[in-house]
Amino acid sequence: MDERVREHAAVIVDHSTDVQPGDDVVIQAGAGTEDLVVALHEELGERNANPVVLNQPGRARRAFALAADPEELVLPDHTAALMEAADVVIGIRGSANQHESADVPPEQQVALQKLRKPVQEAVLDTRWVGTQYPHPGTAQKAEMSTPAYEEFVYDAVTRDWDEQRALQEQMVEILDPAEEVRIVSGSETDLTMSVDGTVTINDYAEHNLPGGEVFTAPVPDSVEGTVLFDKPVITRGREVTDARLTFEDGEVVDFAAGQNEDALAATLEADEGASRLGELGIGMNRDIDRFTYNMLFDEKMGDTVHLALGRAYEDNVPEESDVERNESAIHVDMIVDMSEDSRIEVDGEVVQRDGTFRFEDDFEA
Amino acid sequence: MDERVREHAAVIVDHSTDVQPGDDVVIQAGAGTEDLVVALHEELGERNANPVVLNQPGRARRAFALAADPEELVLPDHTAALMEAADVVIGIRGSANQHESADVPPEQQVALQKLRKPVQEAVLDTRWVGTQYPHPGTAQKAEMSTPAYEEFVYDAVTRDWDEQRALQEQMVEILDPAEEVRIVSGSETDLTMSVDGTVTINDYAEHNLPGGEVFTAPVPDSVEGTVLFDKPVITRGREVTDARLTFEDGEVVDFAAGQNEDALAATLEADEGASRLGELGIGMNRDIDRFTYNMLFDEKMGDTVHLALGRAYEDNVPEESDVERNESAIHVDMIVDMSEDSRIEVDGEVVQRDGTFRFEDDFEA
Repeated sequence: MDERVREHAAVIVDHSTDVQPGDDVVIQAGAGTEDLVVALHEELGERNANPVVLNQPGRARRAFALAADPEELVLPDHTAALMEAADVVIGIRGSANQHESADVPPEQQVALQKLRKPVQEAVLDTRWVGTQYPHPGTAQKAEMSTPAYEEFVYDAVTRDWDEQRALQEQMVEILDPAEEVRIVSGSETDLTMSVDGTVTINDYAEHNLPGGEVFTAPVPDSVEGTVLFDKPVITRGREVTDARLTFEDGEVVDFAAGQNEDALAATLEADEGASRLGELGIGMNRDIDRFTYNMLFDEKMGDTVHLALGRAYEDNVPEESDVERNESAIHVDMIVDMSEDSRIEVDGEVVQRDGTFRFEDDFEA
Repeated sequence: MDERVREHAAVIVDHSTDVQPGDDVVIQAGAGTEDLVVALHEELGERNANPVVLNQPGRARRAFALAADPEELVLPDHTAALMEAADVVIGIRGSANQHESADVPPEQQVALQKLRKPVQEAVLDTRWVGTQYPHPGTAQKAEMSTPAYEEFVYDAVTRDWDEQRALQEQMVEILDPAEEVRIVSGSETDLTMSVDGTVTINDYAEHNLPGGEVFTAPVPDSVEGTVLFDKPVITRGREVTDARLTFEDGEVVDFAAGQNEDALAATLEADEGASRLGELGIGMNRDIDRFTYNMLFDEKMGDTVHLALGRAYEDNVPEESDVERNESAIHVDMIVDMSEDSRIEVDGEVVQRDGTFRFEDDFEA
């Protein structure tokens, strides 16, 4: 086995999820990720934690989605019970065809996802992490050779997370006490939102491996303006390009897409919270130096901002906060490239211009 | 997809487990069984039942077993919670290397299996079934071409189970009211046991697909004599050949094996119940016409008897019965070939000679 797979497993178990003896661990394994599953079993065995492996093939998920009637289905109690009893959930993305559900009607997918919301909430109550196995199929999606993609993935996941945390803390100190954020990019994107009262989190690879972002939640009713997402987003098994959203009082009042606009429409109509923002994230991982058409990596890039439609994280909007937490069965991240002709303003001051932060060299206010 | 895979899925869902709308279904999928998993998702979707797929690679199980300390491990609560909430558990044997755990010390495997006993008991409380996917790797073990093995498997699983039930009922009527059973084969095997008070079950492919046996439990203390198992048994990842057991007062007092005797020893020492018999089964499926070194099929052959060390099924020894139910973390089936120089006696009368039952043509008392 590639020694880097073992290192990856050790980072997952030690840094991201801090596995302790007796922990009940769920591994959600994508297709073709067996080496990492084996390496995790070594690590978990050494810690006397109990693994169970879930692996629903994409073809099976599609077959079920096409055959089932969401009106007749009920919550999968057994999966909910599993996740409620779990201490740690490790999700490993594999090589499954990301478009395996491309011929399932989007509204069917939304309905099925809604049914699974309590399961998803139980996962979020664990010490969960999502990570990537560098399978040739994923390398293909990234338009890279497999060895180069392996290097890209392992560089990104086995880095010095303490150093990254310190870098990002500077942005947390700006964003956490702030009231208003404005995102401006090119001629199309000009969006303002309040972050007054929400909590900014420093992501140094606990829930996402690689990590490397600082994120908070907008106040749901406060979002105003238009945003164009430069990078394609895969939702409902389909690639939505050039998605453009216009917000009034926090709600999407107009939308368009270059391709697969109906998948975007179905996402927005999933439920009430699906047409509001649940997350504002600022990418800060300089080791991720190229787009790979993979949200886990792309959203961490140093010169991107991402916004998510749907569910806000409880960490960003704790129960004791005065802010309403946006509720939804969905959470769909979408990326704005901030590398050129762009700026982030916080309370009227420019804190990033063309991808360079105020606390970095070469920043020009 | 091969149409026979869809037929197999329909038999599993309709005949074996009688899946109803809203049922919570666990699929335990072996390696390389994806086509059947997909076909099951179609069937389950049509019935609006909820599937979840478990798939722990053999390599992962081995890695965990080598690394963990059974003294420090605790029951996997999350897996127990999953199985306790499940209505149906479908186990699909695949192509995983049956010897993947061959280098894990047997006593380590026994200790781990003991820990999982409550999980196994929760599975037995569901409408569970175990079946086989005809993967090339399994065909190899059977020393058959893949197409011939596919035909063998699909013939065995998609037969007329009502007819089979009627055939077997004749043996149930003999065995259920009986007091004593004697198994004689060749010069070595001569074993007697009481079945007084235990319940004989007609297996027509509810829990095993293929089914095709009639089985009961011996009264634990009643087993006397010696038995030589002609066919190899895989236990603890190793092939034990020519296992020979001698019983006194129901307990193994002497044992030997041609090969891997230490794996047999570890099995017998698993716990108190592991050195006693939990099952007497009589194979009656005439469509299974050859040994394939696979217990699921071999034990159903018309001219075999099998005995299991370890746990007796509750169906055979219900709680209200006066008979003590043999308890154990293990249940290891072992086969006696009854096709030549053999007989089964029930209460002193010969009911099978050289593989032919009393109620069949050509029977000679």
